[in-house]
Amino acid sequence: MKIYGDTNSGNCLKVKWVCDRLALPYTWISVDTLKGETRTTEFLRLNGAGQVPTVVFDDGRVLAQSNAIIRYLARGSDLIPADDFAAAKMDEWLFWEQYSHEPYVAVCRFQMVYLGKAASDLDPDKIKRGYFALARMEHQLALTPFMVGNAVTLADVALLAYTRLAHQGGFHLDGYASIRRWITEAERALGLAPVR
Amino acid sequence: MKIYGDTNSGNCLKVKWVCDRLALPYTWISVDTLKGETRTTEFLRLNGAGQVPTVVFDDGRVLAQSNAIIRYLARGSDLIPADDFAAAKMDEWLFWEQYSHEPYVAVCRFQMVYLGKAASDLDPDKIKRGYFALARMEHQLALTPFMVGNAVTLADVALLAYTRLAHQGGFHLDGYASIRRWITEAERALGLAPVR
Repeated sequence: MKIYGDTNSGNCLKVKWVCDRLALPYTWISVDTLKGETRTTEFLRLNGAGQVPTVVFDDGRVLAQSNAIIRYLARGSDLIPADDFAAAKMDEWLFWEQYSHEPYVAVCRFQMVYLGKAASDLDPDKIKRGYFALARMEHQLALTPFMVGNAVTLADVALLAYTRLAHQGGFHLDGYASIRRWITEAERALGLAPVR
Repeated sequence: MKIYGDTNSGNCLKVKWVCDRLALPYTWISVDTLKGETRTTEFLRLNGAGQVPTVVFDDGRVLAQSNAIIRYLARGSDLIPADDFAAAKMDEWLFWEQYSHEPYVAVCRFQMVYLGKAASDLDPDKIKRGYFALARMEHQLALTPFMVGNAVTLADVALLAYTRLAHQGGFHLDGYASIRRWITEAERALGLAPVR
């Protein structure tokens, strides 16, 4: 399996983390999104959406969208709850992450780290929605150790990717004790070194 | 099962269509998002994200996010491919719909129909990205009758919701013959009356 990805992208790291956790062998092929490498004719032939991560299996089949990829790779593993409703709650968080978290928390970070924007130049609406997303996570993580109950699932993988980097987008987690506790525990459960 | 939804919202209609197609009984509870009914204390207790659709099962359990809901309701049915990889491709389209299609195609429609904006006042970047999404669908639907192969799946349910209404957001489907063919066939497969 080849993973086309950019290690600066939380969406790409989700796939790496799941492969590492489940001991799935892969070759990582670095794609620099900032240099337009997802917009070349060659790459667009792989994935017409022009997005990483994109996975190519040994038989040539291609799969894209980080959360769809990890859902496929982790099928049958303990990263997906065996109970149907718990798995549906996991899916709820996966879709929510892409619609209501990533476009704010990850995009603010992208603009600061890669486009060189100052925190004061970020779109106030994006900041507000980012904090709204973090408040929802805080609420859940005050109730349960992980996003869905007592054990780490793909919901944690997906939300950890950018939440652990939220400070790089100007978000302060000082008032979010449950999120900070969870970052440490989720990193440990996934075998990740703490982010600096 | 109670479905809290707004019939003006394609995301909500996805849930209705799947229930109708699979003959799952439900009570529809109208929520007017424009009147702020998803932001009341009572509603936020149900779904802290303040979004419809939200489903409450008879035992009180709550599920949100349209694509997570339909994935749960349709489990074991012919709306989800039995083959794992085909199901993963369906998931790829479900996540792509929420990230790369709905924020442009649905949001332009929302701004024109509900906020009264003229097509000329829409954000040009949203229009461009909306057409990019439609072009991707056109490419796929020139290859396969439905979004994932030969039969209707949840990928069609999810993408039909706002693609059939794209013209209300100022998008012209004249050059998209495969999409127009597919709208008719997907509506028929799901037992829907054509949209006016």
